[in-house]
Amino acid sequence: MSNPYWSPCIRGLEPYVPGEQPRRRDLVKLNTNENPYPPSPQVLAAVRAAADESLRLYPPPEADEFKAAIATYHGIEASQVFVGNGSDEVLAHVFHALLNHGRPVLFPDITYSFYPVYCRLYGIPWREIPLTSDYCIAVADYQGTNGGIVLANPNAPTGCALPLTAIEELLVAHRDTVVVIDEAYVDFGAQSAIPLVRQYPNLLVVQTLSKSRALAGLRLGFAVGDAGLIGALDTVKNSFNSYPLDRLAIAGGIAAFADDAYFQARRSQVMASREALVTALVRLGFEVLPSAANFLFARHRERAGAELFEALRRDGVLVRHFKHPRIDRFLRITVGTETQNARLIAALESLLR
Amino acid sequence: MSNPYWSPCIRGLEPYVPGEQPRRRDLVKLNTNENPYPPSPQVLAAVRAAADESLRLYPPPEADEFKAAIATYHGIEASQVFVGNGSDEVLAHVFHALLNHGRPVLFPDITYSFYPVYCRLYGIPWREIPLTSDYCIAVADYQGTNGGIVLANPNAPTGCALPLTAIEELLVAHRDTVVVIDEAYVDFGAQSAIPLVRQYPNLLVVQTLSKSRALAGLRLGFAVGDAGLIGALDTVKNSFNSYPLDRLAIAGGIAAFADDAYFQARRSQVMASREALVTALVRLGFEVLPSAANFLFARHRERAGAELFEALRRDGVLVRHFKHPRIDRFLRITVGTETQNARLIAALESLLR
Repeated sequence: MSNPYWSPCIRGLEPYVPGEQPRRRDLVKLNTNENPYPPSPQVLAAVRAAADESLRLYPPPEADEFKAAIATYHGIEASQVFVGNGSDEVLAHVFHALLNHGRPVLFPDITYSFYPVYCRLYGIPWREIPLTSDYCIAVADYQGTNGGIVLANPNAPTGCALPLTAIEELLVAHRDTVVVIDEAYVDFGAQSAIPLVRQYPNLLVVQTLSKSRALAGLRLGFAVGDAGLIGALDTVKNSFNSYPLDRLAIAGGIAAFADDAYFQARRSQVMASREALVTALVRLGFEVLPSAANFLFARHRERAGAELFEALRRDGVLVRHFKHPRIDRFLRITVGTETQNARLIAALESLLR
Repeated sequence: MSNPYWSPCIRGLEPYVPGEQPRRRDLVKLNTNENPYPPSPQVLAAVRAAADESLRLYPPPEADEFKAAIATYHGIEASQVFVGNGSDEVLAHVFHALLNHGRPVLFPDITYSFYPVYCRLYGIPWREIPLTSDYCIAVADYQGTNGGIVLANPNAPTGCALPLTAIEELLVAHRDTVVVIDEAYVDFGAQSAIPLVRQYPNLLVVQTLSKSRALAGLRLGFAVGDAGLIGALDTVKNSFNSYPLDRLAIAGGIAAFADDAYFQARRSQVMASREALVTALVRLGFEVLPSAANFLFARHRERAGAELFEALRRDGVLVRHFKHPRIDRFLRITVGTETQNARLIAALESLLR
């Protein structure tokens, strides 16, 4: 599909394919790990209030108030914060600015499938380290010369989390390269590595407001790390797009960190629903990997993943299935509201009867 | 300021420096070419209406409805439209996807200063073609092997516009490379090259909603070209960030193209104010380049640009001054409201007395 006008370096790219965003509103949508609950009412109010005449003006290019809100929340300095248009944009800049050393970047064979896409985009070599037989990350397997290490914690699509001690082991063993911990799902039950940032100048933690703060539609992500690493991200960002966050996103992001009570209540609710969903799925004959995220990774002991995915879709329940050989028996199921989860279970009950 | 963790390829980057976004609200802000009038009330209403519970969901990754609105407005196909987070992001993807051929990209020596920044970011060689002695682009000067040509039309910061015949000459002379026409300011009096897109598979036109549609704070830009070129941009975008436009920006963008009466009235108003401002500046001893944009590029016959810039700033009027040797006598002055322009003129009158 390319033509001679395309830059040679992009001709072989295989873009990331995001989960489907169906137009049908009646689907039970459990396929892209969105929060089943709405954002905080304070966020919606802040966004509406920001939708005024000032939209004619550029946003503050450094989104300083948003950075300050994140820094205050996490007890760090604003100079240790980088913000971007979703954590996907943040990660893109991370690969470009910090992981392009001509040496292979290491990440698990089963993880967020955007990582190899970024590598191809910037011409970075990579090496996939197999998960263990029980689908966990073993940090001792991350060895040898590398251009950086990228781990999702909890990992996606498995949901398995690493303890901070394991991450610290990695930081000590690889002091010369950057270790990126992608904490997109951390608020649903894993330990954040942000407290380690002060101690390790090679640690970069990436988070998003898309999942635990229910703002996938507002595009807000951030990275936390030593100011030396943040400077690299600023340099690339300011050579790419001065204002990736619009005025409304900035207003919403600030409000999201202000309403902590809402955040805590909703993430507890999702975690409680997850445990109930695990019980129901196990009862139906699924093996469910231990999850510290807002999704479950589960395989049925008899029925194939692709088959269940298609059958659920016909029944109006959308989950995600990956055609990767090692995990093609699994379904990735976002934890929904109680009602959504009940519809999923009812659909599975009738399919498996 | 870099450290060993930085990717070698980014260590020499010199980021773009956007115009200042001061916190002081009492400044007469004529420094970043924002529209002096607010966005359409229909845009604000659409954005507020979109600030609902659906923000928990990812945006449609291809922003299809926004693309359709642009296509309908310009009488083209949606497959000829690419959208992005402001035209700066669109341009970044253009340099990466279409201009990286190992041959120098050509652009004027005096133009949007982000172009060489993109070249450095992606390791693209470039060659600057001097403007003529009266600060115009002469398309006949764009000759020889190249990896693409980028022209702002009207040019920035000069404001001078090229006729479509000149652009067509360029398209014919360089059929093997992509010609990018950056039309950030086109709605203030220049001719858009969009009607040429059907005929020339090497033409890419880039526009923004930041200026003529008064939406700098919402981050919306787009490119129009043959589907073959758009495919390259999609490939890079989908290898970088699946959802650069949030749900509110998409809603606002669609509404902006729907309210054409407002758009026409406001851009006429800005153009009329521009002409009045030219007259007043000439009366004060300025030479003003002919402008088809929402700004003027003007030098005083006696007083230095840097001096006037500083003096105006002390008086609460912010304009822009570039320390580039060839243009350092000039000020770039955004056309404001009648009141803002009157304050500028009053400040200049007292400075020049």
